[in-house]
Amino acid sequence: MKKKISQFIFDEIERHGVDTIFGVPGDFNLAFLDDIVAHPKLEWVGNTNELNAAYAADGYARLKGLSAMVTTFGVGELSAVNGIAGSYAERVPVIAITGGPTTVVEKAGKYVHHSLGEGVFDVYQKMYQHITVAQTYVTPENALTEIPRVIQAALDEKRPVHIHLPIDTAMVEIDVPDTEQPSKEEEITATEWLTVLEHKLQQAKQPTLIVGHEINSFRLQHEVKALVDQLGLPVAQLSLGKSAFDETHPNYMGIYDGSIAHPEIKDYVDHSDLVITLGAKLTDSATAGFSYQFADEQIVTLNHKNIQVDEVTVESMALPEIMSQMSKLNSHFDGEWPQCERPSNSEVVVDDAPLTQQHYFELMQQFIKPNDVLIAEQGTSFFGAYDLVLPQGVTFIGQPLWGSIGYTFPATLGTQLADRHRRNILLIGDGSLQLTVQDMATMLRQNIHPIIFIINNDGYTVERKIHGENEPYNDISKWDYHLLPTVFGHKETPTYQVSTSKALKEVMDKVNDQPQSMHVIEVFMDKHDAPEKLTNIAKAFATQNK
Amino acid sequence: MKKKISQFIFDEIERHGVDTIFGVPGDFNLAFLDDIVAHPKLEWVGNTNELNAAYAADGYARLKGLSAMVTTFGVGELSAVNGIAGSYAERVPVIAITGGPTTVVEKAGKYVHHSLGEGVFDVYQKMYQHITVAQTYVTPENALTEIPRVIQAALDEKRPVHIHLPIDTAMVEIDVPDTEQPSKEEEITATEWLTVLEHKLQQAKQPTLIVGHEINSFRLQHEVKALVDQLGLPVAQLSLGKSAFDETHPNYMGIYDGSIAHPEIKDYVDHSDLVITLGAKLTDSATAGFSYQFADEQIVTLNHKNIQVDEVTVESMALPEIMSQMSKLNSHFDGEWPQCERPSNSEVVVDDAPLTQQHYFELMQQFIKPNDVLIAEQGTSFFGAYDLVLPQGVTFIGQPLWGSIGYTFPATLGTQLADRHRRNILLIGDGSLQLTVQDMATMLRQNIHPIIFIINNDGYTVERKIHGENEPYNDISKWDYHLLPTVFGHKETPTYQVSTSKALKEVMDKVNDQPQSMHVIEVFMDKHDAPEKLTNIAKAFATQNK
Repeated sequence: MKKKISQFIFDEIERHGVDTIFGVPGDFNLAFLDDIVAHPKLEWVGNTNELNAAYAADGYARLKGLSAMVTTFGVGELSAVNGIAGSYAERVPVIAITGGPTTVVEKAGKYVHHSLGEGVFDVYQKMYQHITVAQTYVTPENALTEIPRVIQAALDEKRPVHIHLPIDTAMVEIDVPDTEQPSKEEEITATEWLTVLEHKLQQAKQPTLIVGHEINSFRLQHEVKALVDQLGLPVAQLSLGKSAFDETHPNYMGIYDGSIAHPEIKDYVDHSDLVITLGAKLTDSATAGFSYQFADEQIVTLNHKNIQVDEVTVESMALPEIMSQMSKLNSHFDGEWPQCERPSNSEVVVDDAPLTQQHYFELMQQFIKPNDVLIAEQGTSFFGAYDLVLPQGVTFIGQPLWGSIGYTFPATLGTQLADRHRRNILLIGDGSLQLTVQDMATMLRQNIHPIIFIINNDGYTVERKIHGENEPYNDISKWDYHLLPTVFGHKETPTYQVSTSKALKEVMDKVNDQPQSMHVIEVFMDKHDAPEKLTNIAKAFATQNK
Repeated sequence: MKKKISQFIFDEIERHGVDTIFGVPGDFNLAFLDDIVAHPKLEWVGNTNELNAAYAADGYARLKGLSAMVTTFGVGELSAVNGIAGSYAERVPVIAITGGPTTVVEKAGKYVHHSLGEGVFDVYQKMYQHITVAQTYVTPENALTEIPRVIQAALDEKRPVHIHLPIDTAMVEIDVPDTEQPSKEEEITATEWLTVLEHKLQQAKQPTLIVGHEINSFRLQHEVKALVDQLGLPVAQLSLGKSAFDETHPNYMGIYDGSIAHPEIKDYVDHSDLVITLGAKLTDSATAGFSYQFADEQIVTLNHKNIQVDEVTVESMALPEIMSQMSKLNSHFDGEWPQCERPSNSEVVVDDAPLTQQHYFELMQQFIKPNDVLIAEQGTSFFGAYDLVLPQGVTFIGQPLWGSIGYTFPATLGTQLADRHRRNILLIGDGSLQLTVQDMATMLRQNIHPIIFIINNDGYTVERKIHGENEPYNDISKWDYHLLPTVFGHKETPTYQVSTSKALKEVMDKVNDQPQSMHVIEVFMDKHDAPEKLTNIAKAFATQNK
């Protein structure tokens, strides 16, 4: 059938389960925004700026498995690059579509607005090559093959892709065949790594399975659970990829974060004779500055397109295929390991003393319910939250590798729109919120109901702990955060200010009583107070920077 | 004398007149932010995010002639690229300094936070190569020559440069000689273009001098005035570069913007037998979609490193040198030209009817005083403001080539900090303000006193006029803009809401009575109302996009 190229693109995106397109309008994309508005299964969500759109698209894709955003040429797409680079680093598949000037204007090399004024048009595409896994410049001749190619690349690699779509090309009609081309799957027959791994598993006296973020990217949580049941391995989880493994499972030991891990877990993992990292990267933020004590020779790496088992390497096998092959492994570990310290069900003592970070997270541990989505901003929020033991079905979202402050706020817009039925809890601090605050207006306009805890403690606490505890560059201006819904035109939104554990507990009860509303809770804590994990990891970072 | 490399950098920057450094802290720059805080002549201004920092630095440099900003590796520098690219396009010299991981971490290829997690560290530097005129990776061996080289490149080309400074390198002490190296000036002896140009000037029956943004970038306004007095040429100004020429000068005809120019100016310029564009680019936004009617053969281009006079081209001569050489031209035009229509001094009629864009700008024309800085956001504000006739000494700032909405708000932070004594007036609309609003908190913290007019008309009016007049993607969420200072912790800041010309006039009088304060004026107008120039140029853009 005949379709405009822009219709074809949005149909292809929708076919993969996407129902929301994020972005900001601009004159080079307006004409094809009409196709989103007119699409029966797509909704346009206009963000307050393009970086926020990229973050929202990232959050959405982490829940849905794919997302798409639209910006305009130059000014729009360049505002989004930090968000897209983060999706690249942490393996989140986002389709970034740029509406460009017409091919006529481009061919004439005109000094058009949003260009650098020198008659060149490929500069931004070149910049995107570094932070996307596939790119295409759409033409009427290539649209039918290129669009599916780049979308498939995003799905295969769980990384962003870039589509440059000249506004005149978007309006061209092409003939789209009714039958889909089945995608070819290459069969990879490498098996040597499995043999070596099986032998190592059978020999291991103290093995550890470390799971990480790629499990979440490829949505392989069920497969991990099956593998653990099959092999009997104890599991440690990295903060980068938390919720890859069900923390209620009996084989779960807890978080491993190098030198600052719980002593029993640290002792077990650091002395393991076999450390299998599955879809996991031992980054500085996940390991307190590379402070793991096991030797590189003990590590087996099983990452997407990167298998390393002793001398055997395989660089072509996708993570799902790796896990599928592992079901053939014949081994079961029957030794012992430290048991995860699960939170007790007893009530946390609450009182009228100033709230501490410790009490905040103790109360948060009790607040989280099964199937919640817990989003934690890279700061005190993340370093407190990744140590929580999650109830079943909780999705945890943080960004410890990319670590762009402000990310989680628009990301929560994305996660909540990806599934309006799940309860979304955002933990964020004042320093981070200030970067991306305006998308609260988008949340309110979309009538979504996340629960937003904002720590108000006068600045960049994570930076204070690394360097400059009392330096002015770590201070921020003081805002009245509880007034934000009012300035964004929704003064009816429930807001709270709390500074004691008793008040926080009361608010949590109120929030539980009123699930059909967004809640904004401003939480006052001392500016020098921090979760223990943060204080410890900050010391490691300070040392690393010398 | 011995200096840390970071001290050397900031001393070199300060030496060129910079007294304020913008940016956002991060763990890879904290240690050298200490050197800014400790510097007797520098002030650190922390922005709410990096894009805002880049915009502020751009605004500051447009007044001061140079600026500098500091971000952290990856997340920070990539958030700033849109701002830096705008500075590149519109020729504004900004020094963008990135604090990077230590050379030890980099050499080991570690999976450090803010990297893409693949052991590569040069990706962001490569992205910056496209939008900066010089780049350097600082080492202890090259610091002494590379730092002055890139700063000089920014000054010579009036374009941004990028400095990548590993955090350990920043702390290394180097030996800095007390005497400065004099910079070598190459003498360029091309004269043929002058001979040809002189002949053309002497022959011309209806010549036009069009001045543009490069005059502002190179701060050559006085030289332009002298040249006009010498050659007797009538001057038209582009919106891209308004305030390059004193609009009170008798040779000033007015704004030339192609088909939508004032009929008398349009008629004169379009039928000119010699059109000299001096530091000026005929972009689409400056010429209503390239709608000028004079032939390419009539054009003499005298731009920075781009002279084209008939067949003669010179590509090495800097704009100041071009203007200096032009003082040798022997010619004086004694013909006639259309006189600029200057605003009358009679009072504008004010009443209680809903305020229109036309009345808004009529009142604004009377509000502007000599030596004001007038900043106009790319939207109704810009398209209304560029048609105002400016009193003497007014600096006009817009961004019509790059056209990144939201730019002017943080830019005003920069312009006002560049000179606290001049009155800064910002004209912006709601759609643009939402992108970058949080730097109002920075303005308030810095205790500066710009006058901020916010048009509240429910969305992207400039986009409505191009495409989708009533489409949802051109709507934005409704905010209570007058509450912004309150939410940012400064409820004492005077704010106003006006919806009639009478109310606007009264507020303008109040503002004049209270110069030692920031003022925020929320101006309600109909969402379909627009300055005539905008309506006309939008039609041209809509045609151009087909």
